[in-house]
Amino acid sequence: MEDKIKRLKLLLKESGSDAILISSVPNIIYLTSYSGFSYFEREAFLIITNKENYLITDGRYAEIAADIPGFKLIETSSENTIDSVFENLGKKIKKIGVEENDLSVSEYRKIRKYFKTANLKNLQNLRIIKNDNEIKAIKKACRIADMAFDYILRKIKKGVTEKELAFEIGFFIKRGGGDISFPPIVAFSKNSSIPHHQSSNRKLKADNIVLLDFGVKFDNYYSDITRTVFFGKADDKFRKIYQTVLTAQQKAIHYINLVGRRHPTYEVRARETRVRDIDEVSRGHITKHGYPTIPHSLGHGIGIEVHEPPRLSPKSKDILRPGMVFSIEPGIYIPGYGGVRIEDLVLIKENKLEILTHSPKEIIEI
Amino acid sequence: MEDKIKRLKLLLKESGSDAILISSVPNIIYLTSYSGFSYFEREAFLIITNKENYLITDGRYAEIAADIPGFKLIETSSENTIDSVFENLGKKIKKIGVEENDLSVSEYRKIRKYFKTANLKNLQNLRIIKNDNEIKAIKKACRIADMAFDYILRKIKKGVTEKELAFEIGFFIKRGGGDISFPPIVAFSKNSSIPHHQSSNRKLKADNIVLLDFGVKFDNYYSDITRTVFFGKADDKFRKIYQTVLTAQQKAIHYINLVGRRHPTYEVRARETRVRDIDEVSRGHITKHGYPTIPHSLGHGIGIEVHEPPRLSPKSKDILRPGMVFSIEPGIYIPGYGGVRIEDLVLIKENKLEILTHSPKEIIEI
Repeated sequence: MEDKIKRLKLLLKESGSDAILISSVPNIIYLTSYSGFSYFEREAFLIITNKENYLITDGRYAEIAADIPGFKLIETSSENTIDSVFENLGKKIKKIGVEENDLSVSEYRKIRKYFKTANLKNLQNLRIIKNDNEIKAIKKACRIADMAFDYILRKIKKGVTEKELAFEIGFFIKRGGGDISFPPIVAFSKNSSIPHHQSSNRKLKADNIVLLDFGVKFDNYYSDITRTVFFGKADDKFRKIYQTVLTAQQKAIHYINLVGRRHPTYEVRARETRVRDIDEVSRGHITKHGYPTIPHSLGHGIGIEVHEPPRLSPKSKDILRPGMVFSIEPGIYIPGYGGVRIEDLVLIKENKLEILTHSPKEIIEI
Repeated sequence: MEDKIKRLKLLLKESGSDAILISSVPNIIYLTSYSGFSYFEREAFLIITNKENYLITDGRYAEIAADIPGFKLIETSSENTIDSVFENLGKKIKKIGVEENDLSVSEYRKIRKYFKTANLKNLQNLRIIKNDNEIKAIKKACRIADMAFDYILRKIKKGVTEKELAFEIGFFIKRGGGDISFPPIVAFSKNSSIPHHQSSNRKLKADNIVLLDFGVKFDNYYSDITRTVFFGKADDKFRKIYQTVLTAQQKAIHYINLVGRRHPTYEVRARETRVRDIDEVSRGHITKHGYPTIPHSLGHGIGIEVHEPPRLSPKSKDILRPGMVFSIEPGIYIPGYGGVRIEDLVLIKENKLEILTHSPKEIIEI
């Protein structure tokens, strides 16, 4: 925690503001290790000045918030509204850096009554490089996900519904001490052509594609994995699509390892590799084989949020750095037929990458 | 759906804008009945003009979005960015009403490049009056919650942990075809003095308070219920606190029924009752008996969100209306000792209220 706050104070110094207002729940979890505040409504703010770190919340959280080390609690109530709190702090703090991508317009108007503001864009990337503890938590979340995949293979049977399998995945993960990252996506047959399909009551039939996309939350950190298996004997059409997706993924992995070794065939230095180039390598392989382009990014950073920086998309400006953890998940989707997606999490190290999810990737026929 | 869009078009007319931009996920669910968009990042917008209803989303959702009746799909991609979409629409739409309490400052800046904007505050209350279908879904969610309470009573045993009970609640609800509204709050002994306690590995011991707060999501609609039971023989201190909370809740219910009947002892007309007066009646009963005031609102509207208008708080400006559904949940919390909260959902009808959760409220000793 100390290190994180130190980095924030450095950011504060560079910004020319007197304080930083942290409003986004993931950044609050990151800085306080407390994950009890709602994502659905505003229940807390942090204000970091050179001298003090304030945690502002209401009576429902006061008892627990008073125990969070490194922060001074300011309790709001119907007598001490957030407006009064801001007004008081505004006497000492003139200019405050805010998260413009998180604050709502209404909140911003309120804050502007009491402070000058600056948009601290860097806060979006506050968590982009993971430390050892974070990597440990993500690895544990990946291990549970791998076990869940192994478990769910045994539940894939004729007549089972998408919802039932999704439930079983969640059940297994929770029994294993984790939580689910998002409602597991289970998609049979042509449903698998919808990248973010909502699991339905559709029943599994012979010769169906089975796409499974789920993640685990462990100790506030997420994993994310996708595998696509075949219920029956895989035909050539499926095999060709599957192989194209798998190779697209392998090319991305290979590319990262190459630039890590500063391979002469790539005229880039490892430290300056744009993550969009990774997207391009993988996406290009798919379109070159006559399939539609991936209708989503090749991947996304992951940590306290399922999707966080870096973004592996054609327009991304992020640069590859050791300590980043992200997904690589190419997919081919044919409306009316179905889709294949293969997703793994990787950790970027000094000269290469480490794959964090280990479920098998050869074609599985059940 | 038709009716909802009609109401929106009326709102549009009144607003003097050319279009309405709907960004909040709950309002998108309300208007499209599609609940697949993420709450954690922006994946869709609706734009409602006099002539057209647009649904703007990306390729991951394009196939499913094309099937949503009443909306014309605009698909974003790396070629057709959200900026280009806004720029194009900006040629026809001059002024657009937005949800300032939902849009982030960054999004707002982007929108302001292409449109004049107006803050449509009424959109916050778009869902405040429930129709018959919505009430039906909430009632079903309440029924499952009541069954879950009955089920969980049988799992309360010496040595069981808070997390285990929370898991069992979730398990039961999902087996019953619902989903959980939020991680169930299970709090033993002094943990129950933290209104939003995160269930821990604490084990149940003799003479412990057991506070259970959970909800069910069914067909996109939520329920919410809290009961506090005693593991062992309840002592006088607990009994006194429990009775005070229960009476505080009954007084609120009684008050609503009285104003519904335009009772002469209350100098208000039913149609102009402020919900803050309900809060006051209940809160006053608790403080009058020497206990600390409720550190949260007396209750909250519920529907597509667990917390939505109206707010039953001392500063609320909402007026009681038939069709509202909200919680009434007084509580007494004594740090170091524990807490008692009793929460039910109620539906406001023309002349009275209907209680939607039916779990027993006499003191339960296990």
